[in-house]
Amino acid sequence: MYEALMKEMLAEYGADTLKGIHHFIPDKEPRKYLYHLIQDYPNRGGKGFRPGLCIAACKAYGGTMELALNSAVSLELLHNAFLIHDDVEDESFYRRNKPTMHEYNNRAIAINVGDAMNVLALYPLFKNKEIVGPKLSEKIFTEVQHMVLESVEGQALELGWRRDNICTLKEADYLRMILKKTCWYTCMHPLRIGALIGTSGKIDPETFNRLGYFMGTAFQIQDDILNLVAEEKKYGKEIGGDIIEGKRTLMLIHLLEKCNKNELEKIKQFLAVPIKERDSATATRILSLMHKYQSIEHSKKTAQYMAGAALKEFYSIFSGLKESKDKKFIESIILYMINRDY
Amino acid sequence: MYEALMKEMLAEYGADTLKGIHHFIPDKEPRKYLYHLIQDYPNRGGKGFRPGLCIAACKAYGGTMELALNSAVSLELLHNAFLIHDDVEDESFYRRNKPTMHEYNNRAIAINVGDAMNVLALYPLFKNKEIVGPKLSEKIFTEVQHMVLESVEGQALELGWRRDNICTLKEADYLRMILKKTCWYTCMHPLRIGALIGTSGKIDPETFNRLGYFMGTAFQIQDDILNLVAEEKKYGKEIGGDIIEGKRTLMLIHLLEKCNKNELEKIKQFLAVPIKERDSATATRILSLMHKYQSIEHSKKTAQYMAGAALKEFYSIFSGLKESKDKKFIESIILYMINRDY
Repeated sequence: MYEALMKEMLAEYGADTLKGIHHFIPDKEPRKYLYHLIQDYPNRGGKGFRPGLCIAACKAYGGTMELALNSAVSLELLHNAFLIHDDVEDESFYRRNKPTMHEYNNRAIAINVGDAMNVLALYPLFKNKEIVGPKLSEKIFTEVQHMVLESVEGQALELGWRRDNICTLKEADYLRMILKKTCWYTCMHPLRIGALIGTSGKIDPETFNRLGYFMGTAFQIQDDILNLVAEEKKYGKEIGGDIIEGKRTLMLIHLLEKCNKNELEKIKQFLAVPIKERDSATATRILSLMHKYQSIEHSKKTAQYMAGAALKEFYSIFSGLKESKDKKFIESIILYMINRDY
Repeated sequence: MYEALMKEMLAEYGADTLKGIHHFIPDKEPRKYLYHLIQDYPNRGGKGFRPGLCIAACKAYGGTMELALNSAVSLELLHNAFLIHDDVEDESFYRRNKPTMHEYNNRAIAINVGDAMNVLALYPLFKNKEIVGPKLSEKIFTEVQHMVLESVEGQALELGWRRDNICTLKEADYLRMILKKTCWYTCMHPLRIGALIGTSGKIDPETFNRLGYFMGTAFQIQDDILNLVAEEKKYGKEIGGDIIEGKRTLMLIHLLEKCNKNELEKIKQFLAVPIKERDSATATRILSLMHKYQSIEHSKKTAQYMAGAALKEFYSIFSGLKESKDKKFIESIILYMINRDY
């Protein structure tokens, strides 16, 4: 039930968001090297999770799609810009079942396209003044600035840990990194911004921090588990790619804590060489070790615990609001996280 | 005479700008992987051309350093972010006599540092409201948005031309690209923003477009000539790097137009292989051809013609303003361009 509603609403929010994105991409030269490329990632059809949460929160609090749309468009543009740079940084090959931006163009062009999207994302926020008024649009702008800064801080931690091959991380380090890298921009700020718009700036945005943290953490852990275990086609990224990339996932951090000295040494060695020299045979062995030490099982449980905590938070925050498809949509995402099959 | 004044004023504007930059870089974690790195390029001491022009224009029109400083800080942060990404895109080794950000860290970290600087650059603009008022700060924000968008458009053209190994470009294509990539953000917008602040928003910013275009073009062509002919130490970039990188400079475009079929074919072949496979022997031969066909001489003359046109524009715009060191500074930069020794 909740899954059908979730998909229905994601499609509804997503269609308007995509239209909005196209509206803000200039129809002029240079098309081939810039503006056509900017359309590519959004056109591939992501989940539309972030604009969805923003629009849903706005409507659940009594606002309209129109009021939230510019903010949703900005969030989705920033997300796609982030993905393009993230793909370059991780040297990923696939995104949403197609070659990554830098793979079918080149690295230089991909970086520049991401830069362009980051500045284009400011235009709808700027236009917001006419839609939600000067005070609220300024507040939203501050929210977005904070969101991007938290994201690059989280990204800095993750990239730094990989570069220096840090293998002594604890679960608390991981959660702090994920809070910065994922939670703020995937859940906390979309909910905060949406609710601010829906209440004409009256709600305290801090209301949504715990909910957004629980949701974002569950989401990120599940995303990482899927990267390891799902079928390539279903998910659209190369399987085991995160292991090759040396990404500090909860599974890897758990494994590094639990495995024996001999195994630890081998994993460290594998992660010490450049990505392109890491072999998939060893990656597969590391995956086996993650099964052996129940790192994946532990991560699944952690994600479910987080999703459960999110549901509790959701009821305590949203129960006073009148029923709506939009309110149900937020609940449905959390229920989906709790019941997600891998 | 003008050179001493130019240096004196660049030092004066630069010191305040650097202080301002440090003020806007958060003093918190993650330092090692982010905030310390953000300080690096600004601390290396660039020319400070852009903040200088902005502050000088503001003061020449009767404003103060304080009024222009936040905008100058934002311009310089954006410039340094652009340099970090540009260095990754061009696979450059040196910047201001030291290894580039991606060379002494890695590519992923460098891209992320640039992204962080781009968002940090918005903070001083946001703070501007308290300094120059809401209306003017909004106008400046629009100026900066346009500036960044023009720059990524210009960058897209240049990167695209290289990627597709376009060898049929005309001088007009080059000038259009440089207008977008360099002139807006190096001269036009710094002058426009400074003058807007100095006149409390009363001046028509279009006033400075021709001046900024002439100055920016002269600046870029001279920068490219220096890359080819100056001593490595004096300039701080690898010599002939642009030829290896396949950068579409005025010299290269002129050479491609003037050389014979046999030579053209060889240059095309050289540019068709990946950067790392291009040999410095062939690059040196291409440099010789640029001498043979007077491509460098032609470019020098073009730059001087542009600088001359800039001087004419400068006098027609600024002659009504009372004398000041700041007004003289702008003149001194143009005089320096006219007399620059290579």
